[in-house]
Parts: sequence; C-alpha cells; structure tokens
Amino acid sequence: MIEQPLRQGERIDDLIPGGLKIIQNASAPCFSLDAVLLAAFAPLKPGWQVVDLGTGTGVLPLLLHARESSCSICGLELMGSMADMARRSVALNGLENSIRIITGDIRNAAVLLGKAQADLVTANPPYFQPGRGRESLDPLWAAARSERFCPLSLLFEQAALLLKPLGRLALVHRAERLAELLSFGREQGLHAERLRLVQPRLDKPANLLLLEFRKGSRQQLLIEPALWVYGRGSDYSPEMQAIYQAWEVLA
Amino acid sequence: MIEQPLRQGERIDDLIPGGLKIIQNASAPCFSLDAVLLAAFAPLKPGWQVVDLGTGTGVLPLLLHARESSCSICGLELMGSMADMARRSVALNGLENSIRIITGDIRNAAVLLGKAQADLVTANPPYFQPGRGRESLDPLWAAARSERFCPLSLLFEQAALLLKPLGRLALVHRAERLAELLSFGREQGLHAERLRLVQPRLDKPANLLLLEFRKGSRQQLLIEPALWVYGRGSDYSPEMQAIYQAWEVLA
Repeated sequence: MIEQPLRQGERIDDLIPGGLKIIQNASAPCFSLDAVLLAAFAPLKPGWQVVDLGTGTGVLPLLLHARESSCSICGLELMGSMADMARRSVALNGLENSIRIITGDIRNAAVLLGKAQADLVTANPPYFQPGRGRESLDPLWAAARSERFCPLSLLFEQAALLLKPLGRLALVHRAERLAELLSFGREQGLHAERLRLVQPRLDKPANLLLLEFRKGSRQQLLIEPALWVYGRGSDYSPEMQAIYQAWEVLA
Repeated sequence: MIEQPLRQGERIDDLIPGGLKIIQNASAPCFSLDAVLLAAFAPLKPGWQVVDLGTGTGVLPLLLHARESSCSICGLELMGSMADMARRSVALNGLENSIRIITGDIRNAAVLLGKAQADLVTANPPYFQPGRGRESLDPLWAAARSERFCPLSLLFEQAALLLKPLGRLALVHRAERLAELLSFGREQGLHAERLRLVQPRLDKPANLLLLEFRKGSRQQLLIEPALWVYGRGSDYSPEMQAIYQAWEVLA
C-alpha cells in the first residue's frame, strides 16, 4: 500500500472505522448518506463485474468492494480532478487490482467499457433537472447535482447497453422522480424488480428511493418496507445503525 | 327512507356503526378494507362531482357521501345485479338525491356520464390481468377480480375523459402494479401527485398502494409515509383505528 500525497484542501476520512479510507476535498462534492444507502441496497454476488456511473469520490466502488472483495468494479467519472482523487483513494487502500477508475462521460459508457459485460450497474446520479434545484457555477458541483451533463434518460440507455441479459441496475434518487425512473426503465427494457422508499423519520414523507431494475426480467415488483433514517431526535434508526455496523464488521 | 326488500342471500350490514347501512350478498363480491382505505385517501371538497368506476356494492359512494354530503356522486357498475343491489343500498339510506348508480360499462363511461364534468374519479379496479390470479367462472367475481372486462389502460383513458382540467383520479391497487399505473397515467396526461404504500405490518413489504393523479398537473410527486394495517397481533394499527373512528364520528 503506497501512501498517496494529498492535494490542497484534501483530507483522508475513515470510510469504514478501522477499515477503508477515502480522500475527500471540502471544496468538491463529498459522498453522502445516499451513497451508503445504495451500497447497502445493491444486490452483489461473488465475481460480479460492476460499473458505477458517475462515481465521484469512488465511495460506491470502495463500499461494494468491502461487501464482496471478489468483484471487479469500474467507476466512471466525467470530471478529471474527481477521478484523480478517487484513483488515489483506491491506491491508498491498495485496491488497484479490484477497482478501476476511468475518466469518461456516462453518455459514452458502453463505448468506453464494452457492451453487455456488467452484472451490476450502480448510480447515485445528479438529482436535479437543469433549471431545478440550486445550480452551481462550479462545474464539479454542477455535474454532481444537475443533469446538465447527463440527462437521466441517457443514464438508463447506457446502463441497458452495459448490462448482460438479466443484469441489474441499482440506483438511489429523489422520491419525487419515481414516475420518470420507472418510465425510463420500461423504455430501456429494464424492469423494476425492487423498490425501497427512504423516509427521514417514521412519520415523514419519503425523500429518497432505492430502485433495482433487471434487464429483460418479468418478475413482479417487490416494494420493501420503508426505511427510515432517524429514530428519536438525531439518533439513527436501528436499521441505519445496523447498516453502518455491517461495514464495521467487514472492516 | 323506504325499507327495501332483500333478495336471496342478501343481508344488511352496518357500513358505519350507528350510521349508513349497506346490502351485501355472501354469494357475490363484498367490499373489502381496500375500499375503506381508498375512501379515506381520496381528496374530497364540498360540492364536487364524483364518479366511482366499477362501484360494486356502492361502498365508495356511500363512504364518500359520509365524508362530504354536498357532493354529487355517481357509481358506474357493469353487472346489473350488483348495480341493482347498490341502488337499493342507496335507497335504504335515503340518499337517492346524492348518489346515482348507473348500470354500464367503464369502457363507455365518458359517453354515458359526459366528458370533463368530474372533479374526482375513484376506482377500486380488478387487480389481476387476464390469466393471472384465480379467475372465476362466475361473471360477478370475474368482473370484480380480472381485467377481462376492462383493461387498466382503458380505465385511465376513460378517467382522463371524465375529468375536468385539474380534476383528480384516486385509486387503490396492488403494490406490484405501480410501474404500469404510473405509466398509464403519464400516457393519459394524468400526473401522479400523491402515493401512499400500504403494508400489512411495519416490517412487511407493501401489498397495496393508494395513488392520486391530477389531470394536467405538474406538481412534484409526494410519497406519504407508509400506512400499515395491523399493529400487534390481529389488532389494527393506531392509524387504521383512526380511519374507522373518523367515520364513526361522522355517523
């Protein structure tokens, strides 16, 4: 394991206490709870070929590797400086043989990474359509938050191309985009097999959703019990605590 | 209020303790919890014109009337014997001036009832596509359970025709049909504004859903906290108890 030099503004965070580390920069997008939820929700089997579209800090490849170290994971990231940071996080953990970070555009994903080779595609995509939500002038933030660089429909198109028959797409998104997500899936032959809504609290509307699509499947949609993030006050709910503890056990 | 004669196999049930009564026949489809959930979920304002598609026993018009007696409600029912029983339930409660029961086919609803006149359309439609689920040879049960007599897509088409601009469609359906429901809505310009999943228990997958669409709306989808039917053992959850109590208060 080679210690990588940090660039200005960067810090090394414990991704898993006692386990993996991740480089983040306070002046660039950092990973959020949403990525952790997706990494716990995504299906994963030994030896799978995994592609993470718009990998950012590389948090999803790292967390998925912790769950199943025999998988071969590729993180695709448009922004060169983010990809570079993610690549150094992979090296910092000595995982160059398991995780590749590719600098490239999601819109070319199937050309860059090959068609019909992935068992699983993951994505924690930008949540806002151009003109909705706060749009940053900083391209790093704009690319992380706005679909300006990649409309959601194109992400589905590329995911469908990347996936093997019966391969799976798992993503996290804002709850209010549900209808579009299901519709884009149908258009690309990606059948929604599993949905989980995420509520901040037991009595609050869902703000996030987790969705698993499967290419060419005809299985009935399973809507799992809602997950809520917080229990009393600012404490995580028992299930959120269990999600974090699962990685600590792996570490 | 004229006491209506009962036909063979019929009984009079308390729809609301101390309040409305409903005629049911053990050898024909009876109303279920699903209709009660929909009647509580549907938006309702004074003076609204309401159409219930496939009204069966007439349970939805009766429960909606109890919530808002100034509404004018029309229940459309394909099966003559069911429509006749529903009509006698309306008379039994002396509500002929508020509720009309029309014998007719959902596929002709806009022709029978007029276009763009409804503020609200409700439906507790058959849950199964032809060939799925148990299909009864008895046409009363077949029509209540199977889409053989009215595919879901046609129900959306007729609802869109019946509704005024910004009118609403509220329905209850099986959770696994979510993707189709949202897709049919989009095809007919009915925008999903509100979704509520119904779980049997807090830790069980959703088996039902409640959806509110609005014609020509662009509002973001609100996914309300999941509702669960049972608490401990065979007791209703506090929220289910509150739903029933709300009608008792009205009675």
